[in-house]
Amino acid sequence: MVEYDGTAYYGFQVQARGPTIQAALEQALAAVTQAEVRVVGAGRTDTGVHALGQVIHFDTGWTRPVEVLQRALNAVLPRDIAVRDLQVAPEGFHARFDARSRVYRYTIVNRPVRAPLWERFAWHVREPLDVDRMQIAAQGLVGTHDFAAFGHAMHAGASTVRTVYTLECRQAGDVFTVEIEADAFLRQMVRRIVAGLVEVGRGRMAPEELAVIRASRDPTRIRTLARACGLCLIKVNY
Amino acid sequence: MVEYDGTAYYGFQVQARGPTIQAALEQALAAVTQAEVRVVGAGRTDTGVHALGQVIHFDTGWTRPVEVLQRALNAVLPRDIAVRDLQVAPEGFHARFDARSRVYRYTIVNRPVRAPLWERFAWHVREPLDVDRMQIAAQGLVGTHDFAAFGHAMHAGASTVRTVYTLECRQAGDVFTVEIEADAFLRQMVRRIVAGLVEVGRGRMAPEELAVIRASRDPTRIRTLARACGLCLIKVNY
Repeated sequence: MVEYDGTAYYGFQVQARGPTIQAALEQALAAVTQAEVRVVGAGRTDTGVHALGQVIHFDTGWTRPVEVLQRALNAVLPRDIAVRDLQVAPEGFHARFDARSRVYRYTIVNRPVRAPLWERFAWHVREPLDVDRMQIAAQGLVGTHDFAAFGHAMHAGASTVRTVYTLECRQAGDVFTVEIEADAFLRQMVRRIVAGLVEVGRGRMAPEELAVIRASRDPTRIRTLARACGLCLIKVNY
Repeated sequence: MVEYDGTAYYGFQVQARGPTIQAALEQALAAVTQAEVRVVGAGRTDTGVHALGQVIHFDTGWTRPVEVLQRALNAVLPRDIAVRDLQVAPEGFHARFDARSRVYRYTIVNRPVRAPLWERFAWHVREPLDVDRMQIAAQGLVGTHDFAAFGHAMHAGASTVRTVYTLECRQAGDVFTVEIEADAFLRQMVRRIVAGLVEVGRGRMAPEELAVIRASRDPTRIRTLARACGLCLIKVNY
């Protein structure tokens, strides 16, 4: 299980244009094990997205205790990435294909003035939000649906049907969180859903409208995207 | 009232060696009001220390509404500093001399592995801490005492007597917080107290020992300093 502050990275997956979480993990593994290692992650988090509980797998010829490998990796990884837990996986385990569901949390700080202490980890929304309206709207997205209105598949022509198990909006003072569990997510799906929920919370859209947009399968209806920095991959269930 | 992420600054007060919060505020005020303005802060936070509720005062010839000045300042200030609240002060108000007490919060993340998401805002302590032992030790510091063992005065020969009103250690999962309110603080006093509390929490020192160190007034007894990044000025009371 891997935790990271994604601010400085171009997302999880290896990219030509700059540093990624996967590349940093592979470099650390190469440095420690003295061999080229390929890392597979459960969730392909975007540029600037964080993780508390990303899950990865890799094959290695490492023969010493797994705790020693974990400590060595944490010693060479940059300060914004850490391996929280490392275990020998069952034969054939695949971090992405075997995952039953992913849990993401999105954080919004809701107040008139900018919030410097939340700058890296939350989206700052000035207009007052109504959490009850957001929660009503959220319920219209729970279940198995075609989410084409909220994102696109990784590959053209692939299914855009996903199952959202839970979608909860909570408020604690001026900090709002949206927690969502689904079997899998389309690209930018959480950030589009949150953008829609914020429209509802601000009073610019009726709570019932979000389910209508979902049913329309029209990707042009939600034109904004919640900021990447508010998003965090919390947990992957197997 | 000013909020800032102090990571990139050499503390509050103007320094020749690099950027400070005071300098950033004075530059923003000069840019907005077209005049040189001197800012006085209630707490001289150290390099890397944060604030949720720093209080400042300044004199200005600004004649338009105070809300306009606040918005203009927040538009020109860097993203890691924001003016949360701005009001016309009573005649003769002094942010530092009129303060009755200051409240600081110190955050520790207590787990075996580094915590990337807390890197900027907490001290990472690996050894398990016992919050009950810490709280017992904390009570030995409450009251009016000579705190020479926990810091030095701003000017040589000045009094090192301070009154600690409350000192509370709390635990929520692997996050520990130490909240301390005092009439005023010696330099690095909170960070030395927290270093002592952590020694107790780790079991390296008896809870009663901290009051003994306090009574000794010996500044060499606490040799470590809790990391600056864990410290945040929460509130100033008048």
